[in-house]
Amino acid sequence: LDGRAPQGEFASYLAFLAEADRLKSVLRASFLCDLSRRENSAEHSWHLALYALVMAPHSGSQVDIGRVIRMLILHDLVEIDTGDVPIHAANGQTHHGAAQMAAEMAAAERIFGLLPQPLGAELRALWTEFEANETADAVFAKSLDRAQPVMQNIASGGGTWAEYQVTYEQLVERVGVRIERGAPMLWSWLSASAQIYFRR
Amino acid sequence: LDGRAPQGEFASYLAFLAEADRLKSVLRASFLCDLSRRENSAEHSWHLALYALVMAPHSGSQVDIGRVIRMLILHDLVEIDTGDVPIHAANGQTHHGAAQMAAEMAAAERIFGLLPQPLGAELRALWTEFEANETADAVFAKSLDRAQPVMQNIASGGGTWAEYQVTYEQLVERVGVRIERGAPMLWSWLSASAQIYFRR
Ligand SMILES: [Ca+2]
Repeated sequence: LDGRAPQGEFASYLAFLAEADRLKSVLRASFLCDLSRRENSAEHSWHLALYALVMAPHSGSQVDIGRVIRMLILHDLVEIDTGDVPIHAANGQTHHGAAQMAAEMAAAERIFGLLPQPLGAELRALWTEFEANETADAVFAKSLDRAQPVMQNIASGGGTWAEYQVTYEQLVERVGVRIERGAPMLWSWLSASAQIYFRR
Repeated sequence: LDGRAPQGEFASYLAFLAEADRLKSVLRASFLCDLSRRENSAEHSWHLALYALVMAPHSGSQVDIGRVIRMLILHDLVEIDTGDVPIHAANGQTHHGAAQMAAEMAAAERIFGLLPQPLGAELRALWTEFEANETADAVFAKSLDRAQPVMQNIASGGGTWAEYQVTYEQLVERVGVRIERGAPMLWSWLSASAQIYFRR
């Protein structure tokens, strides 16, 4: 918002929402199912919320689906500052490295800090919970975040797996373990569906 | 999904989620805040869910914010078949015309029909409730759907209002009334912020 916008109690909410708009310009490695382009992190986050709505009965543990959806809506906002780090990039070494985590913490501080308290702290706590991947809600949310690109790759004939020369064993290790932890039946379906793309 | 995908209880969930992916290719009239391109309906739906999280305390009536977010995630899926009809297009006459409403009903039948029952019927009922705009949850969700493009236009220096030659009176009539009904304080802030773009 430029200097002409009025101030007042809504100004900080709307500054945050205009900043969040930039997530629509953060590109991910995954393609749309029709391969027309790579997807961005905002539409990815929407897709995950829809995954949660549909997959709720298949979570491994009892979850509060409303909290899961909130986490998924917020989970990538830090990428406005850091960009998306593809899970299979640099042979799987960069994702969740110490440098990335420090950058994401700083981004969370800046972006959620645009909001007044206690709202900013509440939303930041949901993001921290998602990242820690310990509570049942976070574990399920994280499993969907890992499952959706697998699905995009299956729907688009293999997608980014060939590009990053991923083996089936790497897929299991980098994403399968987490999907299975949060949504075991979903992983068993996805792994059966994905295997065909890794046959030599 | 092509014929090689395994069947089973997850096949219909994932067929629905792959179909939903097409919402990322439905373009709206509104621009991103940085004017780099028009936004699509999937990322718009994500942005609205974030609006709901932030604006929840400012709803005109008591709402169940979890239901509001669910409605907002689902509300534009019918546009996969019908496309987005800009609210200010054709001098405001096309939006919510009888032909558009019939097409959207058919789209809802097809798209939610991809899901097994009772899930498909449950999600379709949320969409129907949103469209009817009668319950407190729907009225608040609809107010955010109307408020977000106003915000995008303010943040981008007037956006689509000049393109569609919208007057301030038309803005009040086409979107202001609905925003005020669901979120009165938000409308009073937005109308003050928007007025500068309509000065002659
Ligand atoms: Ca990410």
